[in-house]
Amino acid sequence: MQPQLQPTEAIQQLSDADLENWYEYPVRVQPHHTDYAGVVWHGTYIAWMEEARVECLRSLGIEFADLVAIGCDLPVVELSIRYHRPIRLGMEAIVKARMTAMNGVRLNWEYQIQSLDGTESYVTAQVTLVAVDQEKGRIMRQLPAAMEDALKRLTGQFDAS
Amino acid sequence: MQPQLQPTEAIQQLSDADLENWYEYPVRVQPHHTDYAGVVWHGTYIAWMEEARVECLRSLGIEFADLVAIGCDLPVVELSIRYHRPIRLGMEAIVKARMTAMNGVRLNWEYQIQSLDGTESYVTAQVTLVAVDQEKGRIMRQLPAAMEDALKRLTGQFDAS
Amino acid sequence: MQPQLQPTEAIQQLSDADLENWYEYPVRVQPHHTDYAGVVWHGTYIAWMEEARVECLRSLGIEFADLVAIGCDLPVVELSIRYHRPIRLGMEAIVKARMTAMNGVRLNWEYQIQSLDGTESYVTAQVTLVAVDQEKGRIMRQLPAAMEDALKRLTGQFDAS
Amino acid sequence: MQPQLQPTEAIQQLSDADLENWYEYPVRVQPHHTDYAGVVWHGTYIAWMEEARVECLRSLGIEFADLVAIGCDLPVVELSIRYHRPIRLGMEAIVKARMTAMNGVRLNWEYQIQSLDGTESYVTAQVTLVAVDQEKGRIMRQLPAAMEDALKRLTGQFDAS
Repeated sequence: MQPQLQPTEAIQQLSDADLENWYEYPVRVQPHHTDYAGVVWHGTYIAWMEEARVECLRSLGIEFADLVAIGCDLPVVELSIRYHRPIRLGMEAIVKARMTAMNGVRLNWEYQIQSLDGTESYVTAQVTLVAVDQEKGRIMRQLPAAMEDALKRLTGQFDAS
Repeated sequence: MQPQLQPTEAIQQLSDADLENWYEYPVRVQPHHTDYAGVVWHGTYIAWMEEARVECLRSLGIEFADLVAIGCDLPVVELSIRYHRPIRLGMEAIVKARMTAMNGVRLNWEYQIQSLDGTESYVTAQVTLVAVDQEKGRIMRQLPAAMEDALKRLTGQFDAS
Repeated sequence: MQPQLQPTEAIQQLSDADLENWYEYPVRVQPHHTDYAGVVWHGTYIAWMEEARVECLRSLGIEFADLVAIGCDLPVVELSIRYHRPIRLGMEAIVKARMTAMNGVRLNWEYQIQSLDGTESYVTAQVTLVAVDQEKGRIMRQLPAAMEDALKRLTGQFDAS
Repeated sequence: MQPQLQPTEAIQQLSDADLENWYEYPVRVQPHHTDYAGVVWHGTYIAWMEEARVECLRSLGIEFADLVAIGCDLPVVELSIRYHRPIRLGMEAIVKARMTAMNGVRLNWEYQIQSLDGTESYVTAQVTLVAVDQEKGRIMRQLPAAMEDALKRLTGQFDAS
């Protein structure tokens, strides 16, 4: 009997599932993305990560503009980013995004910005969002139902059922 | 009797008043303003001109955020800009702004972006704004009264009284 | 014999060719493109038009980053833009770009930013670029040969040969 | 004789000195800083923090553009930021910046973005920079001498001498 194998397998499976959960958003370095050094200005990545996140949500059926229209905003409350290598004017890259955790109305996202062939890592980052009721100016008690369902599919929380 | 002289004088006086009406907004080229060429990216000037305009209005007692709060927006409907010389990282410049005409709810502004000593001209531009009722999504029939009064002082339209 | 008909036809054909020469660059309004009014900030279009121009050149075999690498920059020297209708968060649009004239090293471009179905016009604009020798800091006497050839194809100047 | 008191005092003094070492950079929320929610877009703070850092260095006699001119760049290699409260259109804030450590060519900075009266905290952040030799594309072995001297004064490392 090897009970310890079971959790190991479980973790492995989760990890595999996670690996497939990366949403990939391609970008190309345009002149306005660069600074005096000829590489992407460090703040530009924040915009790219936001675009990737919005497009990832759209791929799940969550239209960000619709959320805003019903009074639910998703501001970034925490962000940490490491810059490994610069990306030069004209180069292409892939912004890989995935949601790694959903704690109530608090959503954690992870990012890897890589070369097209995946051999070079330019940037890694984590971003935390919180759902806010725009009218009340307060953190929501729970996510809008349709959104929560879609996100649960994303994190595989329905797999066990 | 030389009635034709009077308008000539009036025009001259208006012109002198106009020259003194430049609002001066100093800027410094920061890294995020630049592009790969080490100079200010051509879209950055749009932001600087907006800042100069908002600060000019504030100097007249018109707080832009208050206008927005009462449902009056002032979107740019037309903009033309000529780039004469680039400005490099670290350099300072003066954004000179003035309102040149007010036709109902349509406001024309003129810009000159120059070196501190005024000997070099980097950019010249014209911008037209229109007052919009945000709720109705329509051009307003007239400016909010307090705003109109303040702007009339700016264009010297009260000089004749 | 009606010799005058021939040029008329030629012009018509050129005009038709031009109409087909629009390069179409799709965009989607992301949160970072918007301002307090919930619509695209007026400076954002400058970035979109630059992206469309760079991608149009790429479609002709002109890689902008390569131009810069050989010391040829293409700064904007003139830009005029009219804002017809705002574009809201989440909406899609097409940035249509085409080069309308090449006078030596001076390139004129025209833009129309429209709804996907072409029924709504959001923005129209003209942009003039000039080729600059980055090292000398001076306007070039002629375009790099490969670039000139590619652009001549774009404007149909080889059609007559 | 109480030798242990001396380091305690030294630490206290350093701490006091540090508190006074905040460089204060005032900002005002302009329309282009905001997003659809009427508050500062989360990427805008990155630009403000860069401006505050560059101006802090200038106050020490280190002109960032001069560093770049001699081939020394100072890219951000790590950044973490927490968003506590939004800042609305038209509001003013103070970006407080200070260098907290210098490990060879690695510089750690800390930020607090606050209301003018210091009672509200909007953002806190840490940023790490590394000096890079632009020509070689490699991390420098040591900072340019004049820069190192100026920064040592900043961190109070000369206090002991």
